[in-house]
Amino acid sequence: MALGTDYEAQDCSLARALEIVGERWTMLILRECFFGVRRFTDFQQRLDISKAVLTQRLSALIAAGVLERQPRGGRTDYVLTEAGLELWPSLHALIRWGDSRSDPVRRRRIFIHNSCGTDIDEFGRCPRCSTVPGAAELLVRPGPGLGAPTRTDPISMALRDERALLTPF
Amino acid sequence: MALGTDYEAQDCSLARALEIVGERWTMLILRECFFGVRRFTDFQQRLDISKAVLTQRLSALIAAGVLERQPRGGRTDYVLTEAGLELWPSLHALIRWGDSRSDPVRRRRIFIHNSCGTDIDEFGRCPRCSTVPGAAELLVRPGPGLGAPTRTDPISMALRDERALLTPF
Repeated sequence: MALGTDYEAQDCSLARALEIVGERWTMLILRECFFGVRRFTDFQQRLDISKAVLTQRLSALIAAGVLERQPRGGRTDYVLTEAGLELWPSLHALIRWGDSRSDPVRRRRIFIHNSCGTDIDEFGRCPRCSTVPGAAELLVRPGPGLGAPTRTDPISMALRDERALLTPF
Repeated sequence: MALGTDYEAQDCSLARALEIVGERWTMLILRECFFGVRRFTDFQQRLDISKAVLTQRLSALIAAGVLERQPRGGRTDYVLTEAGLELWPSLHALIRWGDSRSDPVRRRRIFIHNSCGTDIDEFGRCPRCSTVPGAAELLVRPGPGLGAPTRTDPISMALRDERALLTPF
């Protein structure tokens, strides 16, 4: 939908943030980045997204300074910038809200502070260390709500084991 | 844009959350709810949104259990449910990210823990009390980045003073 110029007059930082990340595919692309996905073809396979839409969204995220291109092995990696990494608290808060909306005890993904092995709370805090670990300090493991695999690509299968966030595939 | 059925196969709580709130107008409507807006005409005035779009978004939020209708003075209030109130951490994280994207010292809105008067940090914590106050425990006041008023409706003017979040207009 067109938001138009009226939208830009919205007097709030939220409106600015949503100009960049306020679109569902964009947030799912960023989720994949935090999980360690960096390749165009891997985003495509994980998200079942059209090449045209993915190209457009990646370009918009690069223009906004959230992702950057990095050469690796003759191909291009799409990597979170510092501004992109700072989106982790927003993404984590939405993930937790999505989890609690179904059944709080059946979380789909558990995020663990890697230095102490503690499950972070719904506000992103490590209850043991009283810090808010960044994405680079977290492991992700499947939770009891994840259910049987619906996807069998290598990345989806790897994400059924414990992994450090941001580790490239 | 159409997200289609493939999108629903996304194996993550984020995808579920975005099914409900992953649209820019929706998030701005929720921001207004946290600021205390409850009336259809007030949402319309604050957001410059068409009647049709606003009607559709409010209905979707009610169907999702995020808002509920409450009669007040012969009219209808749209009020956050408990599930809606739990969106505050996500919304706050996005607001703070939007702020830090421009100039961290020029924040547009400051959120204050009302029991101790302390500015909450970017993770939503009160540094003085070491708690994460809910929206009902917060005041909002204009920050140094807010700039000159661009809107002169009564609600926008009232939001240039300090107010408790969730206080109805």
